[in-house]
Amino acid sequence: MGNGFGQIKTQFYEHREPFQLAGGDTLPEFRLAYQTYGEINAAKDNVVLLFHALSGSQHAAGTNTDPEGVFGPLWTSECHQGWWDEFIGPGRAVDTDRFCVICVNYLGGCYGSTGPASLDPRSGQPYGAQFPQVSASDIVDSQLALLDHLGIDRLHAVIGNSVGGLLALNLATRYPDRVAIVIPVATAIEVSHLQHILILEQILAIENDPHFRGGDYYEGESPDRGLALARMISHKTFISLSTIQRRARREVVRPEDQLSWFKIESPLESYMLHQGNKFVTRFDANTYVRILDVWQKFDLLQQTGADDYTAVFQRCRHQKYLVFSISSDVCFYPDQQRELVNELQAAEVPNMYITVHSSKGHDSFLLEPDLYTPHINYTLNGV
Amino acid sequence: MGNGFGQIKTQFYEHREPFQLAGGDTLPEFRLAYQTYGEINAAKDNVVLLFHALSGSQHAAGTNTDPEGVFGPLWTSECHQGWWDEFIGPGRAVDTDRFCVICVNYLGGCYGSTGPASLDPRSGQPYGAQFPQVSASDIVDSQLALLDHLGIDRLHAVIGNSVGGLLALNLATRYPDRVAIVIPVATAIEVSHLQHILILEQILAIENDPHFRGGDYYEGESPDRGLALARMISHKTFISLSTIQRRARREVVRPEDQLSWFKIESPLESYMLHQGNKFVTRFDANTYVRILDVWQKFDLLQQTGADDYTAVFQRCRHQKYLVFSISSDVCFYPDQQRELVNELQAAEVPNMYITVHSSKGHDSFLLEPDLYTPHINYTLNGV
Repeated sequence: MGNGFGQIKTQFYEHREPFQLAGGDTLPEFRLAYQTYGEINAAKDNVVLLFHALSGSQHAAGTNTDPEGVFGPLWTSECHQGWWDEFIGPGRAVDTDRFCVICVNYLGGCYGSTGPASLDPRSGQPYGAQFPQVSASDIVDSQLALLDHLGIDRLHAVIGNSVGGLLALNLATRYPDRVAIVIPVATAIEVSHLQHILILEQILAIENDPHFRGGDYYEGESPDRGLALARMISHKTFISLSTIQRRARREVVRPEDQLSWFKIESPLESYMLHQGNKFVTRFDANTYVRILDVWQKFDLLQQTGADDYTAVFQRCRHQKYLVFSISSDVCFYPDQQRELVNELQAAEVPNMYITVHSSKGHDSFLLEPDLYTPHINYTLNGV
Repeated sequence: MGNGFGQIKTQFYEHREPFQLAGGDTLPEFRLAYQTYGEINAAKDNVVLLFHALSGSQHAAGTNTDPEGVFGPLWTSECHQGWWDEFIGPGRAVDTDRFCVICVNYLGGCYGSTGPASLDPRSGQPYGAQFPQVSASDIVDSQLALLDHLGIDRLHAVIGNSVGGLLALNLATRYPDRVAIVIPVATAIEVSHLQHILILEQILAIENDPHFRGGDYYEGESPDRGLALARMISHKTFISLSTIQRRARREVVRPEDQLSWFKIESPLESYMLHQGNKFVTRFDANTYVRILDVWQKFDLLQQTGADDYTAVFQRCRHQKYLVFSISSDVCFYPDQQRELVNELQAAEVPNMYITVHSSKGHDSFLLEPDLYTPHINYTLNGV
């Protein structure tokens, strides 16, 4: 049964004044692309802010075929259906009869928010390499500027999946009075060593592509091969190896001209290459590198200015946390959420910790609404 | 206490006739670089053949500073000490008072055996992209040609670590009458899905480097950045993450000009980049790709022509197997050796299965002789 949203339009927030970034740079202005599902009530206290993951967009639910072409060629058919469509709607995990969901494309993104491909108003050229470094705090602050604009002082909840969970934690701990319920799904309190290494590998895959040129490639060829390899490196952590193997049991397709010596001979190789090549049609390499950089540099202690996690979370005792682990997750391992919960408990922050058992790996948070819906629904409705 | 070998010379075997490869191609001739430790006895029945790992060489023990410069610039100071020096010598794991160890640089290698950098006698130019595809069976068969030349019909033992273990299993199962004891260390009966994916990533990292050109780069620049990234991708599986983190607790070194946008800011990033960059000074990208290809295509059923593993190992009941797992190995996971042992047991092949508990990960087989010496020594001496 659908949620009946039909075509959802992306709206735009124009921030027409200089925006100070945590790293020291200033953006002269920015735009955010966002979507809403459900109605904001008169008290404006029923809003749920949802952070998308690394390669997601503001389009969380319903359908958007981009009839007006605002998103350009990256808005492929893969983007048309909302990425959390089955989680949002009347009676769903986030019940839109009661709550209004807002989902915003990250600052630095490639689906309508200001990012490296946007024109720098000072030069009239795409920012490219000149787009300033943004951090988790900058993405959060830009979205709070939108909330201010909409007159929303306090969120009913913030939900973040994967990298989006890092942003949810940044918001909840830096602005503890602006959100009541925090739902981090398959995310972490700290970036693990393995994640640091995999992020570096992906950045190098793109940096090594001679078309990348620091990000100044909009006039020429795109670093497609680098981006495809980067995506392959991460893809294996998103879905379980058994799922990869199952999906790969098809023919062997050899991409022409992509390899000069090595011969693709197995369905597994063919599948991984296909995943990489498919991704480059819908994502911008600069945005990918910038969000990887946000992830790589995520540091809740530094970003909150606190000495330790107890100090971070002591300010959050009036909040409620619902933390999800996925048993088979090899992107954000369950140990990483356990660390978060340990710190919440040490600081005496109300929390509920749920492990869902899935064979689908990290991407379970996109694929299996039944595993999450009861607890999310219960927690959002129960206050 | 040293093994007293001092300077060890590399010897060469020249195979001056055409050599048929499993993939259908023919090499007009080849050379193998090898070293020996200990003396071959009169009966020639005390020889232990040792297969090196992916990036190893024939130089397993003692010192070789390459005073004559035969190995060229790739023979850096890292290569001077034998890679299994503490395992080989009087009273050691392989007791050279009793046994003679032979270790041979793989066909396709870059340390003196014929490989892609060698001159094709037909053209007088380096083979490069034209070097034929070699398989595990080809490497094994080339080494058996050397054994034939030396008059060694039957090995006392074959030992192989990591990728070398795949070769040991290929030899032991294709020529069951030519070896009595088989010692596979931190290896596998089958390449895992994760290994297939990581190998593909590494090959793409090199293939994506515009200097690679299918392998025809000896006249110009080498694909150093691709090879460095490939090495980083594998390095994280060789040593444990805690070891990486411990070793990385030093300064941050930023390689000049290697990155156009991303800023290296953590010791972990700096350490990983250093590992990659260091490797390219001592290894050839073509050899790396070719050995990865051997690994990727390793298939004991296809290579023995058997229908199942029971059929493979039924021919091996007169052999003895000593199989080692490393508890913290994330390159060849312990499950992979367990699968091997299960098949040995199903086929009623005498075997002993040992898990060594180490915090050092896969590279334990290079670093912790005490964990392996008693069982190897006991097994080799006990027949």
